[in-house]
Amino acid sequence: MNLDRNQITDCNKQLMNFHQQELDIVSAKLDQQGINSEEVIADIIKLQVATPSWALGTGATRFGRFPGGGEPATLEEKISDVGILKQLSGQTSSISLHIPWDIPDNAEEVKELAASYGLTFDSMNSNTFMNDPRGANTPNGLSYKYGSMCNTQEAVREQAIQHNIDVIEYGKRLGSDSLTVWLADGSNYPGQANFRKQFENVQDSLQQIYKQMPEDWFMFTEHKPFEPNFYSTVNNDWGSNLLLAKGTGERCLCLVDLGHHLPNTNIEQVVSRVIMEKRLAGFHFNDSKYSDDDLTVGSLKPYQLFLIFNELVEYMKGDEKQDNELAWMIDASHNTKDPMEDLLQSFDAIALAYAQALIIPRTQLNELQFNNDVAGGQELIQNAYRTDVRPLIREARMRQGGAFDPLAAYRALEVRKQLIDARGTRVAVTGL
Amino acid sequence: MNLDRNQITDCNKQLMNFHQQELDIVSAKLDQQGINSEEVIADIIKLQVATPSWALGTGATRFGRFPGGGEPATLEEKISDVGILKQLSGQTSSISLHIPWDIPDNAEEVKELAASYGLTFDSMNSNTFMNDPRGANTPNGLSYKYGSMCNTQEAVREQAIQHNIDVIEYGKRLGSDSLTVWLADGSNYPGQANFRKQFENVQDSLQQIYKQMPEDWFMFTEHKPFEPNFYSTVNNDWGSNLLLAKGTGERCLCLVDLGHHLPNTNIEQVVSRVIMEKRLAGFHFNDSKYSDDDLTVGSLKPYQLFLIFNELVEYMKGDEKQDNELAWMIDASHNTKDPMEDLLQSFDAIALAYAQALIIPRTQLNELQFNNDVAGGQELIQNAYRTDVRPLIREARMRQGGAFDPLAAYRALEVRKQLIDARGTRVAVTGL
Amino acid sequence: MNLDRNQITDCNKQLMNFHQQELDIVSAKLDQQGINSEEVIADIIKLQVATPSWALGTGATRFGRFPGGGEPATLEEKISDVGILKQLSGQTSSISLHIPWDIPDNAEEVKELAASYGLTFDSMNSNTFMNDPRGANTPNGLSYKYGSMCNTQEAVREQAIQHNIDVIEYGKRLGSDSLTVWLADGSNYPGQANFRKQFENVQDSLQQIYKQMPEDWFMFTEHKPFEPNFYSTVNNDWGSNLLLAKGTGERCLCLVDLGHHLPNTNIEQVVSRVIMEKRLAGFHFNDSKYSDDDLTVGSLKPYQLFLIFNELVEYMKGDEKQDNELAWMIDASHNTKDPMEDLLQSFDAIALAYAQALIIPRTQLNELQFNNDVAGGQELIQNAYRTDVRPLIREARMRQGGAFDPLAAYRALEVRKQLIDARGTRVAVTGL
Amino acid sequence: MNLDRNQITDCNKQLMNFHQQELDIVSAKLDQQGINSEEVIADIIKLQVATPSWALGTGATRFGRFPGGGEPATLEEKISDVGILKQLSGQTSSISLHIPWDIPDNAEEVKELAASYGLTFDSMNSNTFMNDPRGANTPNGLSYKYGSMCNTQEAVREQAIQHNIDVIEYGKRLGSDSLTVWLADGSNYPGQANFRKQFENVQDSLQQIYKQMPEDWFMFTEHKPFEPNFYSTVNNDWGSNLLLAKGTGERCLCLVDLGHHLPNTNIEQVVSRVIMEKRLAGFHFNDSKYSDDDLTVGSLKPYQLFLIFNELVEYMKGDEKQDNELAWMIDASHNTKDPMEDLLQSFDAIALAYAQALIIPRTQLNELQFNNDVAGGQELIQNAYRTDVRPLIREARMRQGGAFDPLAAYRALEVRKQLIDARGTRVAVTGL
Repeated sequence: MNLDRNQITDCNKQLMNFHQQELDIVSAKLDQQGINSEEVIADIIKLQVATPSWALGTGATRFGRFPGGGEPATLEEKISDVGILKQLSGQTSSISLHIPWDIPDNAEEVKELAASYGLTFDSMNSNTFMNDPRGANTPNGLSYKYGSMCNTQEAVREQAIQHNIDVIEYGKRLGSDSLTVWLADGSNYPGQANFRKQFENVQDSLQQIYKQMPEDWFMFTEHKPFEPNFYSTVNNDWGSNLLLAKGTGERCLCLVDLGHHLPNTNIEQVVSRVIMEKRLAGFHFNDSKYSDDDLTVGSLKPYQLFLIFNELVEYMKGDEKQDNELAWMIDASHNTKDPMEDLLQSFDAIALAYAQALIIPRTQLNELQFNNDVAGGQELIQNAYRTDVRPLIREARMRQGGAFDPLAAYRALEVRKQLIDARGTRVAVTGL
Repeated sequence: MNLDRNQITDCNKQLMNFHQQELDIVSAKLDQQGINSEEVIADIIKLQVATPSWALGTGATRFGRFPGGGEPATLEEKISDVGILKQLSGQTSSISLHIPWDIPDNAEEVKELAASYGLTFDSMNSNTFMNDPRGANTPNGLSYKYGSMCNTQEAVREQAIQHNIDVIEYGKRLGSDSLTVWLADGSNYPGQANFRKQFENVQDSLQQIYKQMPEDWFMFTEHKPFEPNFYSTVNNDWGSNLLLAKGTGERCLCLVDLGHHLPNTNIEQVVSRVIMEKRLAGFHFNDSKYSDDDLTVGSLKPYQLFLIFNELVEYMKGDEKQDNELAWMIDASHNTKDPMEDLLQSFDAIALAYAQALIIPRTQLNELQFNNDVAGGQELIQNAYRTDVRPLIREARMRQGGAFDPLAAYRALEVRKQLIDARGTRVAVTGL
Repeated sequence: MNLDRNQITDCNKQLMNFHQQELDIVSAKLDQQGINSEEVIADIIKLQVATPSWALGTGATRFGRFPGGGEPATLEEKISDVGILKQLSGQTSSISLHIPWDIPDNAEEVKELAASYGLTFDSMNSNTFMNDPRGANTPNGLSYKYGSMCNTQEAVREQAIQHNIDVIEYGKRLGSDSLTVWLADGSNYPGQANFRKQFENVQDSLQQIYKQMPEDWFMFTEHKPFEPNFYSTVNNDWGSNLLLAKGTGERCLCLVDLGHHLPNTNIEQVVSRVIMEKRLAGFHFNDSKYSDDDLTVGSLKPYQLFLIFNELVEYMKGDEKQDNELAWMIDASHNTKDPMEDLLQSFDAIALAYAQALIIPRTQLNELQFNNDVAGGQELIQNAYRTDVRPLIREARMRQGGAFDPLAAYRALEVRKQLIDARGTRVAVTGL
Repeated sequence: MNLDRNQITDCNKQLMNFHQQELDIVSAKLDQQGINSEEVIADIIKLQVATPSWALGTGATRFGRFPGGGEPATLEEKISDVGILKQLSGQTSSISLHIPWDIPDNAEEVKELAASYGLTFDSMNSNTFMNDPRGANTPNGLSYKYGSMCNTQEAVREQAIQHNIDVIEYGKRLGSDSLTVWLADGSNYPGQANFRKQFENVQDSLQQIYKQMPEDWFMFTEHKPFEPNFYSTVNNDWGSNLLLAKGTGERCLCLVDLGHHLPNTNIEQVVSRVIMEKRLAGFHFNDSKYSDDDLTVGSLKPYQLFLIFNELVEYMKGDEKQDNELAWMIDASHNTKDPMEDLLQSFDAIALAYAQALIIPRTQLNELQFNNDVAGGQELIQNAYRTDVRPLIREARMRQGGAFDPLAAYRALEVRKQLIDARGTRVAVTGL
């Protein structure tokens, strides 16, 4: 489904009150601080965030699922939905697939379809946290109940390794160039497992997968402290993640999911550390208050998101670079919102935090910090945070033919209604 | 299924080395502190913990489910499983049902069946956190996606109220005398809901259900800070729970689930407060490290469990009493253990903590506390905690014809194998 | 010390670029949403936050203290400092004293001095968490080592009660009308104390103090989960606080300190609950990431602060009212910032959050919430939060003769240098 | 002061009821599991824990200090107190000093004095978290207000480096062979500091100190997530600590303080990771519920302590070894207990956890874990934890001429009274 570009333009017209005036003032004020607003707009346009295929349907908690309607049931429909998001927001130009939920039986056609929407394929996600529902079709049919790559049983580890190699193969056909490995591996009870042996098994398994990866691919490992294992996980924090990445190979990098941290963690400092070690893969964006809540980006801790982007902009505008491009992806679960609305709000929050971080005068910040001007340093970054940068983001969107306010346009154009009309109220079953 | 009592006795014989000697010493030492070990044994026998019907099958997380075999698919099989647990441990003599998972179509027969195992029916659990899978069969077929009793839509609230009244009806036929209300109601995002209006709607709904409750019934409300709602819940902590209970009626009491607290909460003090207000319903026992992990009781924080029982024993041995008997129930989820093994370990941990709390010399503790003897007070309760009270627990079990070591007997008698032989490896679907 | 009003005006002139333009646009946009910006400005001016006397000097942690210079050593100098803050920000018109740190030996003169700066006396703070340094001068000279009002020893409790009565007397002479009671009472170890007896002792002590309070006074009780006691505190959370307040009397209310909560607490919901019970005293504003960090308001979680003000505005603009005016106070500790700068930044953050909450279209929010428009409700309040309301705040300040940017003016006018010149680099010793 | 050995023996006689019987049974039962109780006793005797000099006086929180009497005011008195602890418990044979609180002006005499009590000098602790109270006497007199080794100002960093080199010099004279570096360095506010530059400055400073260390010395770096800095710390977690240690040199190792972790951290897994990387320095033992509460070891989370010792015993009884001996030290703060009583209780808890970990049948545990016997693995280690190992610990103490129950003997012999008689009720001022 493609939205009519004229309709988007019509929507924009009704909302654009004051836009030019606001854009002019914010640009003039930034100019006084030595910030070029045109460059900021260009940077906003460049930041493209991948949409994960599983985020297009209603998510679930262990306490049930409340599906909406018009959800995509096939890979083709998922691609179509991302196309809509791209048209409206101008912020997403790739899709991240999950195997076995999104096996592309006809990779060439799928790739062409995506290209017709201007979309490419982002990192491929393997799944060894559930048993493959295809059961007998899988090579060994062994269970991941007690872990996959960490398992004491060699046959289970081999099945997990082979699954990841299969995922790489799917990815190669689609033009992806990275594999994301999140493992549920760990333990539920003290006494159940040996921390070190589990770690060594995972390390060894990752090395074997790494060897099968094309030379221009990257592997992303993702840490998480708990859930679905509730006593320990193998890749539990950035320290373990960094050890695993370094132990695997040069192109093994650490992915940071914003919800995968213990209470009160200073996530922006974690980002700084991983960048310092040149091992940052990129992000799984979402927000949370208690655990891995997988809520809309920026809905609870927008200032933290800004501080994370502050670290990222320091890196992106700095001299020292990693070999990889940073990977940006949403990873949220939408239980009570229309998934497309949730994603549009998430793109919005990301653009906002990024733009706020871009307008921090870096040289001045460095000087204040060097002089131990504690109040001054805080003031400078809060001034950027408190600036209403939405005129810059809206301008970036409209220059791409997108919507002034994507969520408002999505509603005005009755996109969900159209999807329900086309697909019915059936429930897609792949994903959490 | 009934275990052969002789087989249990045979198992016991092989394990009873040193038992009498240990029992004699611990009894003699307790005697020196003025504690009568026979009374402790009698108290242990009296503490009967209800088994929830949903804990007899493998649980799930939102990341999947790894079922074992021989799980009970019908209410009759569930009752049979609790019968086995009772025989082995002597610690559980009732079952707690969950509607709509355990609708007793023929209540009289079910009641008789339970009685044949020496079992009665504990508190009835309603469910308004999922939509009834029976769909069209439900009176209104409205969705709880945005909450049940807190919902802004009156029709949804009425459906939730009616469901609870239905559950009471089922319970009356089975001889239960209480209704447990745990609500998932809350919100996922700031801005989504009005805290106060949600609270008032829940308060009003509870009052309406309360009016329909028989006069000898109790209502138990259960608080939880998050999950499946991740920004706010209506009955979020003991403070809210107490307000709701008082606002509902004299026989509305606060149920404490050990996993439903924010990080670092002093749960034993919560228990003290609720007892002080004469509103303690009882417990949902489990253990956790991060959130509502629903792990085996005592597997992670056994000292906390002991401190909670310290509060309970103070109440139970004190003069001031509530009108209700305290309700004891397990509420755990077993994803990687045989559910029956998990339950037997949980009973063990509860008996241990209770016995340790029973042997604290209360008068001496009061004196040390009155004299601000900080080290002395700690020393006294830790002395009780460090005492190996297992001889007392084993004695209590054997006097009831149970197993010296229930888990060992369960394995020696190959109970799970027998259940698989009888029921197959089919997967039960009711429960989380 | 009084700042020269012309100098402030001169400072303003240099910073006021775009001010009028920005004010016009924000006003026009608010107007479209039915919000009158003049009323918002008037509300901002009305929100006066008390400055605590102890926040005017460098704070300490248990790991030491790094004092700056020019700190106030006398009550008179503290009043003078608050006068400066008032002139610059227009946001503080009262001072909150702490006994025995600020005993006003000549209450009449002190009161007149304050009045000369346009200042009054806010809530009086008692201190039973330290032993009075005056030692022998205190009536009994008993120690609070094992608690004050919770103490098992009646003589200690009586001393604590008498101290609070003395504080009321000081307050009466100064024109204050409330007593703030924060207690460190609790325990460090399981076994040390009986939760319930401690609670009952505190309850009884508060009742005795309450009886001695003038009939137009309010008592504010303040909860805190830990520190300096690290196992339990008596007034540990809002639930306990509410019980104590209700048990004490109608004019006993619950004070909320933003740093006195367990990790992940939904503080805005706590506020809603206490308002619902008509027991909100007001706030001790600060910010924190880990525990009671006592950092500058809004420096870490500005969105949470906004959500709290969202609850407050709902109450303030609603129909149902408590008998008391809400009490607003900073309670921060400044270890590495100039205390005056820290306070100016805190006033700024408070005004910002308040203004953002004021511009939420309430009727529309209620409608979205009633219709379960989850994304819509979030969008509406985030739109308010993302609006740059600083033009309104600056306008409010300037209309009072204050500074466009108080921190910038404080620096431009070299206030700290003047204070050091006048007072030297000596170190004040009262306070934490 | 030396206690009369006969008096200790007399105390023991009154308490030894049942001791031999209990020892025989526990030994026989362990024997059945293949555990030699004599070896356990020998291991208990070998585990010697250092006493920190600052733990001998009453600690403080930022809310004040409640000193007891008879506290040691000089280094000589501190050594004497450790001598008493050694006599009673047999568990501490070294003392850990803190510079500038314990500068040994006459190192030879101090060393001899210690030797006369059978004591040596454990790791030396530097202090750059406070400004040296000697002020002008320090080489530069610069302030650590904005950090020490992380400071942007080179002169401050050099002062901190020189201080550490001075501490090494003191240590060399006393026969110590390690330097412990705990830094308060970090920041209080976002914007205040650059995470990476702070880290690099600390790394560089540590390298410079390392170069000045004798070749047989070790450097211990200690991480902590917050306090006294409340937004970020430089050495914030084990991941940062490991990077710093590896970046400094082979003999730079990671010290683990049990209170220096975010809420819910799996500390035993942290220990496993650091051992896996062969960088474990040892421990600062204490206990806590909320933050760095510095409570008596084992007073709140004894099971966690056991699980940590489980990891340690696996290492100690395993084949792969680090070059260093593990360093064991208490690091607690005693605000409401007699410090000597607190330390005796801490030694007790450490011996208990160690003995419980020693009696886990390791081969069986490995087998259960290999077979994914989740309930079995838990059962095995809980069986060890639930065993009353106190007879073994008492035997270990008595074989060294110590007390059956050190705390009881300390009280029976009225040690504190003797200390007060000798030293008065004066207050020592060094330490927190």
